[in-house]
Amino acid sequence: MKAQLTEYIRKTINVTEAELSIILSYFKPLEVEKNELLLVYGQTSQRTFFVGNGCLRIFFITEEGHEATRYLAFENNFATAISSFISNEPSSEFIQASEPTTLLYISHEDFYHLLEIIPLWEKFYRNYLEKAYIHNTNRLMSFLTLDATERYKQLLEIQPNIVQRLPKKIVATYLNISQETLSRLKSKC
Amino acid sequence: MKAQLTEYIRKTINVTEAELSIILSYFKPLEVEKNELLLVYGQTSQRTFFVGNGCLRIFFITEEGHEATRYLAFENNFATAISSFISNEPSSEFIQASEPTTLLYISHEDFYHLLEIIPLWEKFYRNYLEKAYIHNTNRLMSFLTLDATERYKQLLEIQPNIVQRLPKKIVATYLNISQETLSRLKSKC
Repeated sequence: MKAQLTEYIRKTINVTEAELSIILSYFKPLEVEKNELLLVYGQTSQRTFFVGNGCLRIFFITEEGHEATRYLAFENNFATAISSFISNEPSSEFIQASEPTTLLYISHEDFYHLLEIIPLWEKFYRNYLEKAYIHNTNRLMSFLTLDATERYKQLLEIQPNIVQRLPKKIVATYLNISQETLSRLKSKC
Repeated sequence: MKAQLTEYIRKTINVTEAELSIILSYFKPLEVEKNELLLVYGQTSQRTFFVGNGCLRIFFITEEGHEATRYLAFENNFATAISSFISNEPSSEFIQASEPTTLLYISHEDFYHLLEIIPLWEKFYRNYLEKAYIHNTNRLMSFLTLDATERYKQLLEIQPNIVQRLPKKIVATYLNISQETLSRLKSKC
């Protein structure tokens, strides 16, 4: 799994072997079962996760008690409840494994320590935030500009693995539609 | 206006006088009239703006031809079409002055040049992205979890200046509701 993380890091920043080995030393392995929760509402997000295998889901619960999924991270992606991770305040979001998942994680403290000791880590983090920002803005725009059918078609085009790998229940919460609507769209599109 | 920008920068990073004066030298002043467009759909976002006085609005146009406002920047805030600024690809967003506005702007090229020559500028940019990320995620969550009345109440609580300073038409596009619904909410809340 550290080989996957190494490849991910090397794509973004031009670190020396020595820097890379310091960075990797702060990442710890973790295995979680399907449906296991890594963070719940009200806890502060103290870890950032790199998915080696499986899938992590970031979601929150609406006032009406429905789940709304903000982000799904498959292999070779980072994920956390970023707002809480940044602000060090309690999270509105949950983190859950949607499949049996193997991970590497780094603590908030170690992540910020790396920012102090390895200047290139700032660039890495900047890139992470840039990607997260663009992803979230695209999600926001899809809700503001597309109807349910259009959102489903866009998902099939851009992230087909979400529809292929995950149960209908989760796909519906990602599109913010009911499972019935999703079934109708699946048979139509 | 450079004094305002200096204060903003000093709150975030601990730059020397020499570094500060280099940073400031890359910002150019600009005055725009109410309703003037600084970026339109399809152009690449080549500038980041710091509002000295007035208000900038970032919006896009939905498939049905309605305006949807993503972000409103008043005095002492930065604004741009960030996704396009980051990716250097054509923008889906427009930038418009909602009031007569005085600005400082820095070009994309100079902004990234500062990242090369002033290491602390990475930290500044990181902070900028963190704030933008949190703001956008909160916006996304408000659309996923709140109905129109709740979104209006939240706006009154968190950013009352939007309701107080801007015309109803713009406030409606920020909440993604019709002007009629907004009028009803205004008389009710």
